[in-house]
Amino acid sequence: MFDNGYFDWNATSPIYPEALEKYIDVSAKYFHNTSSVYSKGAEAKKLLNLSRKECASILKTEEKNIYFTSGATESNNIIISSLRNSISKGTILVSEIEHPSVLRPVMELEKYGYTIEKLKVNEKGIVTPESLAKKLKKDIKLIAIMLVNNETGAIQPIQKLVEVTKKYEQLINKKIHFHCDIVQAVGKIEINLKELNINSAAISAHKFSGPKGVGILYLNKNIDTIYKGGGQENNIRSGTENLPAIVAMTKALQISTSSIASYTKIAQTIKTYLYKEIEQLKKIKIISNNDENYSPYILTISPVGIPSEVTLRMLEEKEIYVSSGSACSANSKKKDNYVLKSMGLSKEIIESSIRISWGHSTTLKDAEKLMETLKNIIKENDFLLKIK
Amino acid sequence: MFDNGYFDWNATSPIYPEALEKYIDVSAKYFHNTSSVYSKGAEAKKLLNLSRKECASILKTEEKNIYFTSGATESNNIIISSLRNSISKGTILVSEIEHPSVLRPVMELEKYGYTIEKLKVNEKGIVTPESLAKKLKKDIKLIAIMLVNNETGAIQPIQKLVEVTKKYEQLINKKIHFHCDIVQAVGKIEINLKELNINSAAISAHKFSGPKGVGILYLNKNIDTIYKGGGQENNIRSGTENLPAIVAMTKALQISTSSIASYTKIAQTIKTYLYKEIEQLKKIKIISNNDENYSPYILTISPVGIPSEVTLRMLEEKEIYVSSGSACSANSKKKDNYVLKSMGLSKEIIESSIRISWGHSTTLKDAEKLMETLKNIIKENDFLLKIK
Repeated sequence: MFDNGYFDWNATSPIYPEALEKYIDVSAKYFHNTSSVYSKGAEAKKLLNLSRKECASILKTEEKNIYFTSGATESNNIIISSLRNSISKGTILVSEIEHPSVLRPVMELEKYGYTIEKLKVNEKGIVTPESLAKKLKKDIKLIAIMLVNNETGAIQPIQKLVEVTKKYEQLINKKIHFHCDIVQAVGKIEINLKELNINSAAISAHKFSGPKGVGILYLNKNIDTIYKGGGQENNIRSGTENLPAIVAMTKALQISTSSIASYTKIAQTIKTYLYKEIEQLKKIKIISNNDENYSPYILTISPVGIPSEVTLRMLEEKEIYVSSGSACSANSKKKDNYVLKSMGLSKEIIESSIRISWGHSTTLKDAEKLMETLKNIIKENDFLLKIK
Repeated sequence: MFDNGYFDWNATSPIYPEALEKYIDVSAKYFHNTSSVYSKGAEAKKLLNLSRKECASILKTEEKNIYFTSGATESNNIIISSLRNSISKGTILVSEIEHPSVLRPVMELEKYGYTIEKLKVNEKGIVTPESLAKKLKKDIKLIAIMLVNNETGAIQPIQKLVEVTKKYEQLINKKIHFHCDIVQAVGKIEINLKELNINSAAISAHKFSGPKGVGILYLNKNIDTIYKGGGQENNIRSGTENLPAIVAMTKALQISTSSIASYTKIAQTIKTYLYKEIEQLKKIKIISNNDENYSPYILTISPVGIPSEVTLRMLEEKEIYVSSGSACSANSKKKDNYVLKSMGLSKEIIESSIRISWGHSTTLKDAEKLMETLKNIIKENDFLLKIK
C-alpha cells in the first residue's frame, strides 16, 4: 500500500491499515446519529466521547478541551475568525512562516479593525523569544505561532515563547490568546499540551496516517464561533459528527504516538544519512539542519542552479516523489515560497529548493535509493550548479 | 448491516457497501495530495474532478458550481456567514422551519447590521409564494428556504418561490441571493438544480447513504468566504480535499439517484400503508400528510397524550428506532420543536409527536412490524390518549 519512493509526507500520509479498519468497523456498527436519544445513538455518543478521552490523554490535556473538526484548516479558522465577533479590536502577532490556513484568515482581520504584525524568523527559520518580547504590546489579542514548520521542519520554541507571553500578561494584567498550529508535530515529536500552555491548537489526522477530512481543535476556553448549527462539540463545531473518521483518527494517534521513540530513531537515522551524504557532495545548500531545532522527518535542500521542476521530474522518473513548495496550498508555486524567503534565502536558492519529507514506513533503503538518484541528477546537471 | 427497525433516516443513514468500498479503494490507491505537482497528485486531482463532474451531471448543473465541503452545516454557513463581508447590509428572509445550521447563522447576522425577517409557514408547514411575495422589499440580500423539511417532510415550492423572487428582481433591477438547504431531498426526490434556478444549495452525504463528514455546496456565483487557507475548491473551501469520502459520496449519489424511481415506489407504498393504518386508528394526529406536498420518506404523527419519550422507549424495546425532534440538533428536546410550533400545532400535540422516517433498504415488512408495535403501544396507553 505504501509507495517506497514517497518522500512527501508533509503534504499528506497514507492511512494506517488499522485506522482504516476502524473506519470500516464504525461505519457498519455505529452509523447512528450521536444526537439520537435511543440506545444506538447513545452508543455512538459513548464511542465519540471515548475517542475524545483517548485523544485528550495522548495529547496530555482534558477531554473538555478536545473538539473534533474537519481538519486543521477548519481548526485554525474557527479560532482566528472568532476574533471578528469581539467588540474590542487590537493587534495580532503572527509568524511569517505560518501555513496559509493561519496567515490568510489573520490577514483578513485587517479589514475588520485589527492591526496585523508579522513576527520575523532568524536565519534558521525560528521565531526567537527575544524577537517576540520586542513585539509585545498592550492591545495584543492573539499570537499565532506554529510548532513545526511544514517547509523546513524548524521547531519553534513554543514553551519559551509562551513563557515570554505569560510574563507580559502579568505585567499588563490582561490575557493574550496563544494559538499554535501543531499539524506537522503530532505523531512526529512529543506533544504535551499541558506543558505547552497554549490556548488553542490545530491538528489534521491525515498528516499522521489518519483519515483525511478530520482533525482536532484543542481549546481551553470558551469562544464565540462564526459558524453555527446543531450545537455539536459544545457549540464550537456544529454538524453531525464524523464518527468513523474520528475513531480512525484516534487509532492513528494511538499508533503514531505510542511508537514515537522507535519511529524517531529510524527517522533520525534517515535524516543523518541524507544529511551527511548531501554534505559530502558540497554542491547543495542545506536549508533544514540536522540538529534538535529541526524535525527528524524533513530535509529541505537546494541544488542551487537546477530548477526545482527539473529535480522533481527526474526523481519522479525513478518513482520518487518530493515536493517543491507546500502542497497544502492549491495554487502555490515554489517561486512564491514565503517561508524560505523569510529566512533570508535568495531567489536562486528558493527556485532550486526541494522538500524531502518522510514517515513511519520509510526505510533507510528507501532513502538510499533517493540519494543514489539525487546524486545522478546532480551529476547530470553539474553544469547548472552554482555551488561548485 | 442495516437494522430493520431503523426508522430515523432523516437523522442519518447507513452507508452503502459500494460507497464504503470506494472509500477503502481510494484511501489505498489515491492518498496523495491533490495539490502535489507529481503524477500521483495529478491522478488524485483527476479523480477529484471526475467526482465533481459526476455530481454536477447528476444534480443537473455545471462542474464549476460544485464545491466539496465537510457537510451541509459547513455549506450553509459558508453562504450565510459570507454576508458579514458585505459592506452594504440589508434584510434577510428566512423560513421559520429551517435547520439550525441555517437559522442560527442567519440570526447571528442581526448583530452585524442585518434585519432578519422570518417567513411563516401555513398549516401544512409550507411557505407559500404569496406569503413570500408580501415580504419582498428592496434591501433583501438573502432568501433562505429549504426544499424538504426534516421534521415534517413538507416540500417547499422552491421553483415557484424563486419565480416570485425573479419577478421582483426585475422590478427593482437588483439581484437577490436565493439559498436552499436540499439535505433531505437529495436521493429522495428528483433534483434539477438548473430548473430550481437558485444561487446556492447545501447537501450532506450521510443523509443519502454516503459517508459522514462530507457534502456539497452548490454555488453559481463568486462569494468572499470567511474561512480561508490553501485555496482549494477555488478558494470557496480550503483544506486538503477528503478524496476517499468525496468519491464515496459520488458513488452514493449515483446509486440513490439512479434508483430513485424504484426507491420512491417502495417508499410511497410504505407511507401509504402507515398512513392508512394510522388513519384507521382515528386516535392519532397525523402531521405529515400522504400527498404530493410531502416527502414519501417520512410520517410525523402525534398520539396526543402519550409523551414522545414513552412511545420512543416502548418502540425501542422492540428494536424500533424513531425520533422525537431533530437529531441533528445536539441539544434539542422535542418540547422545543419550533418546526411543529410554526405550523400552529399545540403544545400537547408537539409533546407527543414522533417522527418516523425510512430509507432505501426499509421494506414493507419492517413497516408492518413498526405498525404492529405502535398499535400495541396505543392500546396499552389508551387511557392517556386525548383523541378518542
